[in-house]
Amino acid sequence: MTIPAPASSLAAYLDATAERRLARYLEFLRIPSISGIPEHAPDCRRAAEQLAADLLAGGLEHVEVSETGGHPIVYADWLNAPGAPTVLLYGHYDVQPVDPLDEWLAAPFDPVVRDGRVLARGASDDKSNISIALSAVEAVLVTRGALPLNLRLLFEGEEESSSVHLEPWLTANAARLAADVALVADSGFFAGNLPAITVGLRGLAAAEIHVRGPFQDVHSGVYGGAIENPINALASIIASLKGADGRVRIPGFYDDVVALSDAERAAMATLPFDEEALRAELDVPALVGESGWTTMERRSARPTLDVNGIWGGFSGEGAKTIIPGRAHAKITCRLVADQDPTRIFELLRDYVREVAPPGVRVDVVAMGGGRPTLTPEDHPATQAYARALGATFGRAPVFVREGGSVPVAASFESILGMPVTVMGFMPPNGNFHAPNEWMDMANFETGVRALACFFDEFAGRPAG
Amino acid sequence: MTIPAPASSLAAYLDATAERRLARYLEFLRIPSISGIPEHAPDCRRAAEQLAADLLAGGLEHVEVSETGGHPIVYADWLNAPGAPTVLLYGHYDVQPVDPLDEWLAAPFDPVVRDGRVLARGASDDKSNISIALSAVEAVLVTRGALPLNLRLLFEGEEESSSVHLEPWLTANAARLAADVALVADSGFFAGNLPAITVGLRGLAAAEIHVRGPFQDVHSGVYGGAIENPINALASIIASLKGADGRVRIPGFYDDVVALSDAERAAMATLPFDEEALRAELDVPALVGESGWTTMERRSARPTLDVNGIWGGFSGEGAKTIIPGRAHAKITCRLVADQDPTRIFELLRDYVREVAPPGVRVDVVAMGGGRPTLTPEDHPATQAYARALGATFGRAPVFVREGGSVPVAASFESILGMPVTVMGFMPPNGNFHAPNEWMDMANFETGVRALACFFDEFAGRPAG
Repeated sequence: MTIPAPASSLAAYLDATAERRLARYLEFLRIPSISGIPEHAPDCRRAAEQLAADLLAGGLEHVEVSETGGHPIVYADWLNAPGAPTVLLYGHYDVQPVDPLDEWLAAPFDPVVRDGRVLARGASDDKSNISIALSAVEAVLVTRGALPLNLRLLFEGEEESSSVHLEPWLTANAARLAADVALVADSGFFAGNLPAITVGLRGLAAAEIHVRGPFQDVHSGVYGGAIENPINALASIIASLKGADGRVRIPGFYDDVVALSDAERAAMATLPFDEEALRAELDVPALVGESGWTTMERRSARPTLDVNGIWGGFSGEGAKTIIPGRAHAKITCRLVADQDPTRIFELLRDYVREVAPPGVRVDVVAMGGGRPTLTPEDHPATQAYARALGATFGRAPVFVREGGSVPVAASFESILGMPVTVMGFMPPNGNFHAPNEWMDMANFETGVRALACFFDEFAGRPAG
Repeated sequence: MTIPAPASSLAAYLDATAERRLARYLEFLRIPSISGIPEHAPDCRRAAEQLAADLLAGGLEHVEVSETGGHPIVYADWLNAPGAPTVLLYGHYDVQPVDPLDEWLAAPFDPVVRDGRVLARGASDDKSNISIALSAVEAVLVTRGALPLNLRLLFEGEEESSSVHLEPWLTANAARLAADVALVADSGFFAGNLPAITVGLRGLAAAEIHVRGPFQDVHSGVYGGAIENPINALASIIASLKGADGRVRIPGFYDDVVALSDAERAAMATLPFDEEALRAELDVPALVGESGWTTMERRSARPTLDVNGIWGGFSGEGAKTIIPGRAHAKITCRLVADQDPTRIFELLRDYVREVAPPGVRVDVVAMGGGRPTLTPEDHPATQAYARALGATFGRAPVFVREGGSVPVAASFESILGMPVTVMGFMPPNGNFHAPNEWMDMANFETGVRALACFFDEFAGRPAG
């Protein structure tokens, strides 16, 4: 039997090892594990293998790099606390693409540390949370020889590319993933330095629209007036999707939306939120969106429809007077409970077919998605985590809804049958999915301490 | 004094030198003189210098490569027929860009001769007409020692990129360009092998629309619902430009259009035109356009509005769930008499500003243009050219309106004050401005003979 070291040694150990933690985290950021770009598949595998090596070195057991048919899943556990609760902690080691590259202040995979921040792709989303979890577990194991509870760690490599292989893997491995709660470590703070626990996450339904006109690009003088232009057609299709009031016009789109209660709207209205600061930060002339809802509600508790990319015809310098043969757009809808991604895609597809002008052929292709979630505020793990945040960050966390999507949260609920608490330490304005993604290193360090504290709180071990 | 050789020697000379003509034409096609792409400026200059060398070798005088501030203008003349009329013949040695490159059956600047066709960028537009003119002049000078009339040749290198330096050059050189008629050699046949003289050309007004949203691409989950999406905004702007009836909705757009007379509509209806063949050739489900007009009318005598290119956000493989910072479109309107390009741009710009949704910033930038023209059918040069076509191709030409734009035609009228006849030998479905541009070599050869015949016809020299 291992005799726990005094708690003070955990704090002392953490204070003494900050530099090593930072070095390991920066090393992890140097791997360009972009899951959505096939050329980066070897980098994703390298990230998985590095992570597995670090878990093994950190004292985790049953470490494996598990094949999925896509990028591997890294699994590890520590299950030597009989009678104590079991936590399944999830994160993802893959990152978003980096373009437009010329807007980065430094190379995205050559992390820069400046003014207490780390600048790199993945610095926050989600390599910060993974690194924090690894460091917290390692520190407790080194200083006490044991965790106060049982822990399973599960890190996937396809979160930024629709997690296509995760659900089959969870289904195949459900029996050995039993836990009392899933801690989805892919979220962050609310406004500045205010810790948050995410109780709602939006889902996602992704589609591509491909419009086909003439068999190839043709002369706009010779054929202009005779045939439909695929770009004009695509623009009219996209314009049909939303009204001037910001509402999505696809019939049935809002049918399954769980209405915000008056109490929820009132609670949301009390959260600190500076609309003008957001407007200025984004450098837009005005914040706009679906009429009848506040900006805070629109970006977290209401569904959206955004075009993520559009292309067709000539985009080089100079002029090319053509009617293009093809035009394309990538579209995603952010969904809220209880919208279903498959149903929303079908409604979108049917509506696009209906509004497509004659003279072109239109294909609508499903590109994956994920369900929205609403998680319970009163679950013991959620409450334990709230206490841990309060104790380490010095202020009670707020319970919020996030606008982003963590489809896996829904998968843990539906496949593994366990409640989900979504947490993490990313800065709310951390430029994830954008140039110049960054992480706050003070919060990184306090985050390690918060997670170690959570283990004690959820295990019922006396603090100190 | 040169004693003219018998006419039969012209025919014999032309029959004997076809191979050499083809070789020189193919050599010309190998120069990638894409005027709209800055990297190809040296190629444009090389094409100009090659052309000048060929003109000198062909017996032309006062050959010069004239600086314009952009790509040079090649000028040459032969003015030794006092008392005879003077013709100014225009063509352009620059070509369109080649993308999408992967749709070409062969490298665009490595011409392939197959089944009586030459496949290459510029094979028809406009290096065929330049090569034909050069060959006709050379053959007459070699076999007769003189032309029956005075000739000025003027070849520009910026026709495919809005001819920005041509008007100033014409203005500066107007005094030395005096001629009885301008022959704009930048057109082609009507339907298959039916020679045509173009009496109407559409003009052009080009613009770019730039939509600015957030300062950079941002996460569509975090900000989706809070701000306008620049691509959605651009799509709604573009969709506003035309109605479901195919009519341009910009106020005042049609104000200056000269209405087609009933007689003109009747004459146009007699031209051979197979709508189903065009639909099948272009592989579109239907021919569509402005309601109330036939396809033939819509593509030649009615103005249009087409998006030539659109881009914004993420267009790579996989998903990137962003709200893009920017979205862009290139737009051209084909204009008909008496629409003015500057006025049409201003109307477009004002309307775009009016319909632009709040929440984004929109810039509309003028990208050049050209005036439409209507040329007289009864001018002696037009009539002489019609007789020459009839004598060489064995059938009388039709008088048509072309959907394309030759802005220089308007410049010759307005700056040099001379009537303009638009002619040429391009196949009507020659894929100019598109992949796999081609030229019919039988028509190329007969074209050389037709042009030589025109010199005699317009000079009043007896045929034979």
